[in-house]
Amino acid sequence: MDRTREFVKGVKRVVVKVGTAVVTRSDGRLALGRLGALCEQLKELNTKGYEVILVTSGAVGLGRQRLRYRRLANSSFSDLQRPQGDDHDGKACAAVGQSSLMALYDTMFSQLDVTSSQLLVNDGFFRDSAFRKQLSDTVNSLLDLRVIPIFNENDAVSTRKAPYEFGYSLQDSSGIFWDNDSLAGLLALELKADLLVLLSDVEGLYSGPPSDPKSKLIHTYIKEKHQSEITFGDKSRLGRGGMTAKVNAAVCAAYAGTPVIITSGYVTNNIMRVLQGERIGTVFHKDAHLWINTKEVSARDMAVAARDSSRRLQVLSSEERSKILLAVADALENNESTIRSENEADIAAAEGARYEKSLISRLALKPEKISSLAKSVRMLADMEEPIGQILKRTELADNLTLEKISCPLGVILIIFESRPDALVQIAALAIRSGNGLLLKGGKEAKRSNEVLHKVITSAIPDTVGEKLIGLVTSREAIPDLLKLDDVIDLVVPRGSNKLVSQIKDTTKIPVLGHSDGICHVYIDKDANIDMAKQIIKDAKTDYPAACNAMETLLIHKDLSTNGGLDQLVVELKNEGVELYGGPRASALLNIAETCSFHHEYSSLACTIEIVDDVFAAIDHIHQHGSSHTECIVTEDSEVAEAFLLQVDSAAVFHNASTRFCDGARFGLGAEVGISTSRIHARGPVGVEGLLTNRWILRGNGQVVNGDQGITYTHKELPLKV
Amino acid sequence: MDRTREFVKGVKRVVVKVGTAVVTRSDGRLALGRLGALCEQLKELNTKGYEVILVTSGAVGLGRQRLRYRRLANSSFSDLQRPQGDDHDGKACAAVGQSSLMALYDTMFSQLDVTSSQLLVNDGFFRDSAFRKQLSDTVNSLLDLRVIPIFNENDAVSTRKAPYEFGYSLQDSSGIFWDNDSLAGLLALELKADLLVLLSDVEGLYSGPPSDPKSKLIHTYIKEKHQSEITFGDKSRLGRGGMTAKVNAAVCAAYAGTPVIITSGYVTNNIMRVLQGERIGTVFHKDAHLWINTKEVSARDMAVAARDSSRRLQVLSSEERSKILLAVADALENNESTIRSENEADIAAAEGARYEKSLISRLALKPEKISSLAKSVRMLADMEEPIGQILKRTELADNLTLEKISCPLGVILIIFESRPDALVQIAALAIRSGNGLLLKGGKEAKRSNEVLHKVITSAIPDTVGEKLIGLVTSREAIPDLLKLDDVIDLVVPRGSNKLVSQIKDTTKIPVLGHSDGICHVYIDKDANIDMAKQIIKDAKTDYPAACNAMETLLIHKDLSTNGGLDQLVVELKNEGVELYGGPRASALLNIAETCSFHHEYSSLACTIEIVDDVFAAIDHIHQHGSSHTECIVTEDSEVAEAFLLQVDSAAVFHNASTRFCDGARFGLGAEVGISTSRIHARGPVGVEGLLTNRWILRGNGQVVNGDQGITYTHKELPLKV
Repeated sequence: MDRTREFVKGVKRVVVKVGTAVVTRSDGRLALGRLGALCEQLKELNTKGYEVILVTSGAVGLGRQRLRYRRLANSSFSDLQRPQGDDHDGKACAAVGQSSLMALYDTMFSQLDVTSSQLLVNDGFFRDSAFRKQLSDTVNSLLDLRVIPIFNENDAVSTRKAPYEFGYSLQDSSGIFWDNDSLAGLLALELKADLLVLLSDVEGLYSGPPSDPKSKLIHTYIKEKHQSEITFGDKSRLGRGGMTAKVNAAVCAAYAGTPVIITSGYVTNNIMRVLQGERIGTVFHKDAHLWINTKEVSARDMAVAARDSSRRLQVLSSEERSKILLAVADALENNESTIRSENEADIAAAEGARYEKSLISRLALKPEKISSLAKSVRMLADMEEPIGQILKRTELADNLTLEKISCPLGVILIIFESRPDALVQIAALAIRSGNGLLLKGGKEAKRSNEVLHKVITSAIPDTVGEKLIGLVTSREAIPDLLKLDDVIDLVVPRGSNKLVSQIKDTTKIPVLGHSDGICHVYIDKDANIDMAKQIIKDAKTDYPAACNAMETLLIHKDLSTNGGLDQLVVELKNEGVELYGGPRASALLNIAETCSFHHEYSSLACTIEIVDDVFAAIDHIHQHGSSHTECIVTEDSEVAEAFLLQVDSAAVFHNASTRFCDGARFGLGAEVGISTSRIHARGPVGVEGLLTNRWILRGNGQVVNGDQGITYTHKELPLKV
Repeated sequence: MDRTREFVKGVKRVVVKVGTAVVTRSDGRLALGRLGALCEQLKELNTKGYEVILVTSGAVGLGRQRLRYRRLANSSFSDLQRPQGDDHDGKACAAVGQSSLMALYDTMFSQLDVTSSQLLVNDGFFRDSAFRKQLSDTVNSLLDLRVIPIFNENDAVSTRKAPYEFGYSLQDSSGIFWDNDSLAGLLALELKADLLVLLSDVEGLYSGPPSDPKSKLIHTYIKEKHQSEITFGDKSRLGRGGMTAKVNAAVCAAYAGTPVIITSGYVTNNIMRVLQGERIGTVFHKDAHLWINTKEVSARDMAVAARDSSRRLQVLSSEERSKILLAVADALENNESTIRSENEADIAAAEGARYEKSLISRLALKPEKISSLAKSVRMLADMEEPIGQILKRTELADNLTLEKISCPLGVILIIFESRPDALVQIAALAIRSGNGLLLKGGKEAKRSNEVLHKVITSAIPDTVGEKLIGLVTSREAIPDLLKLDDVIDLVVPRGSNKLVSQIKDTTKIPVLGHSDGICHVYIDKDANIDMAKQIIKDAKTDYPAACNAMETLLIHKDLSTNGGLDQLVVELKNEGVELYGGPRASALLNIAETCSFHHEYSSLACTIEIVDDVFAAIDHIHQHGSSHTECIVTEDSEVAEAFLLQVDSAAVFHNASTRFCDGARFGLGAEVGISTSRIHARGPVGVEGLLTNRWILRGNGQVVNGDQGITYTHKELPLKV
């Protein structure tokens, strides 16, 4: 649960306020669907043991519509000829509407076996402490009986002209209100509610008018930050409140002790979601400033700052960028003891929390690790400049020369598991390739990541700006970041298949990665069986949880009769590999049948199946695979070439273990990830996947003019001048 | 409106049937929110002049829950100690529930100023023609008074044990039903309704259990096609019907004359959406087989077939692929007269429909066009083979060689405007690059596209299969295609900004294209003013609607004092260009201020603004541009290089018109589109943007084994062996 919503776990007494815009439709009639959903939710809260108090608007509007109908029914034909003014007395409307509204609540709650009760109050009452005491006693009695008290202002007999005075319970006297939002706030405090939910016709409080696409929903209201920032839209069409009234009521109630959440009353289960701690609507809480570091910049600000810095980085000379990397390497070595002690603190915490050994081993920076990281950063500093490489040069016409040059992508968001060394590698790759970077590491490596981030950014000169690399510390920021498809160019998730799938499903930013790694090894009839044994053993057991480990072993049918199959099976069984068969293999080997050919075990287990020949193997791979890495083992080079040509995966190997599919083993230097997408980078991705290109055209005044005055030559030029 | 929903325009009398699963909650109580939304919608239909008849379930369930509550209230403490069976008599439940249910409908409809009425019927009645006549009269009287008749089976006094007999009004006697779905069907026919809406707890009829992600919603039920295909899930938890009953009732009613739509009753406005012709739920109509060609394959089938064919195409030799292109070119020339006559038919239709001249001019294949298309296809046949190019070769270790080779993307979906020549170009590009293709052209070019598609695919040999290139003929198929992110690799929309934005917003498939083309020309203080005049004239007026036309002209401040600015302004005004200023320019030139710097005029108009220097121009472009094409006009090469280096757009020009940003002018051959995305292809895209790469590794048994036994050499090898 989001830390800004943790407090809802302790909520027992809740005041729900529903406004005119939620209760009535645009034609003035009751919004029966929304009211029904409201009653159903309050019933559910009541059943779950919450103490529920409802403050409802809507009576005046409803009464006005009823009276209009009444007059119509009373009219003679000649009456109807006269112009019909909308001159009903507000008090009369309130009287008529109130009974209508309560009758409906009573009917609806009765259907749900809930008893409700009516409490009409005037503001003047609240100045009387005896009244306040008695009100509190009455409400407590009702709640003890599981009866829902329904409050409204007693408009029909109220003589109030001025707004509610609500300052009495606050330190300052600024709390002056007009309407049921303030009544709800006042009741929430008076009745010591644990939460006030204000249901609105919009999702919550926005930074600007909700109709403006640039307005952002504010999840947590921080007085110091938002008070001056927010611009309000029009006052609600209906009712007296509008968002200004809601925010004023919410701020006063929250700072006086009752947290408030403003959320939409148009969604049929929002009250339930609020109480389950879902991050919807806007929360007001007196401790909000403690949860949210007000200095913490927004996701968008971080991304924009990273892009600005990346543009400055890109303008530097190649030597200057190399120098930054050398400074990073030095900084790592100079701060080794600090880094080590923060890393040890993370390890101690992880051990204390009894995390898996594999996690702790990934988390630990081994003694020689920092110098080896510094060494690899220095290697990147020495590498050939990847930015501004001329990829293509063409003379379009006389004195009109086109160049296609490499350039950085822009801003990359990396979400990675608890491996502090990955942070260093990725940061170095970003600097080398001129990209801005946002990093979100696993929480188990929090202290290690923070110190590494600080050490690395301290080595970035002010001309570029340390905001080139942003460290995202809260998990809650991820959904906000994934929405920024206009300022983030690529997301690289490095973690479980589930993480990758989730990210792919929730963002429009291109994602570099793969969710499944269902790698096949096909053993041909002309395989060297000893080689095949070595390869399948390595492909399955070298690191069974890796994405490039073998999950499915396909075997030519001839090997089932000449003993080859048996040797391979024995080899795997000796290594402790559990075998699941396809229909043919399970019948032949008397082993359990696999649930699906598209299954990634990620453990010492694999699927085995018999196929007729290399083409059947290729079909099987196309039908059931994940286009990651496939291997053929054969001595027949013609068969091997057919496999290499036809298999449509990111990596296809002949007589070599699938485990070679890796950036470092491929000689790409640091690896950003492995991509099974067909767009942009595919397979293991190094610096190249962080680059794109631009077209530069140099002329001396050429114009197109309907292609009349120009003679195109389209002559390819050498890349180097 | 979708042609399968056009009939709803003529609907006047509508029967709405709501089942137990919609009316009641999981705890047996009424689902007040859904019931309220139902009543609100029926009120709205009533107001709009529809004749509304409701068939409702829910009484038995509601009565059971009421009686349970009743018994609890009647119980002594010792009663409660005994086990509580659920043994209420169904008839008693129906009697209690019916009055409760009708009381609630009456209350809700009264709130909405609607009068409702109760009609409880038994199946036996319908055998009596006098009853049927009288029922029809009664309902007509009620509807004349705008009263909503609410039907239910009279369960409390019904002695029926067998299902409803409903065969009497049908040709065959297969229509035997059990429940309110059949009652609704029977009433719809008896009362000559124009539409029956069956509200369900799922979106409509699925091809399999709705919980299975592979199940697809069937938008239009075709008896011949779906009867055998569909597998039903479990019968509804509540009520007697379930989906089988709904489909049976729907098929019988539809084929006897009343169309039926099954849709979800959980969405609060689905009845309104159905009557507005939205493509939700499943429609049953006796003419459905006429609307939908049953031979029409599904979007997924087309994409899968294209991928299979593309794999066969990829396996051919380069010469064989070239031969296909030559055969396509021949086929175009051999069928010139047929193509021309179909194209003329399209043009005549477009002229008849008084389409814009520009559309008709794009639509027309000019006399020399077919031979010029054939020529360009032959040029592609001659071009260097793009597939299987070795992009990188590395020796990883002794006898372990890695190659990175180019390969097709897979399947590409092109959605293009009414330009039949684009179809030929794109199809040729796809064959050249080994990709499968799905084409959706503008409806104005329907006949031209169909004949061109036929001519081109007839030239594709059977070894590849004509399904390599699919022609999508219905606009309605697009949403289905855009969901297929597992079988389509790239979408290329070629049309308006709005089309591109819509597609980007609705698909997870990567989109190649650009929505905005806000191109800038910056005139430096050291510009040759005559050259600047030529360039801005060309950039703005050569083709104002093009994406690479100038939208914003930025001018160095010094030109406002030395007369340069005036000359430029006069040049544009002479060409009839309307000018809108930024704050500085509008004050200086006394012209209207622009509404936004991020504005694409696409007409003879542009924004003009004064900037301090080249860096201010770059900042302006980064802040307000769309990263498409920008140009600097200057004689100062240092300033020019700063601009070329720093401006972060797909194309950046020095002293040349922005109009050069184009695949043909760049010498890329046919253009797929222009991309402003940073991932994959950027700028004008030709064959290269339709390719990706694979990694091929050849070894002789190497394994990783923790990187112990292998010595990596990582030696770059020459690309050609």
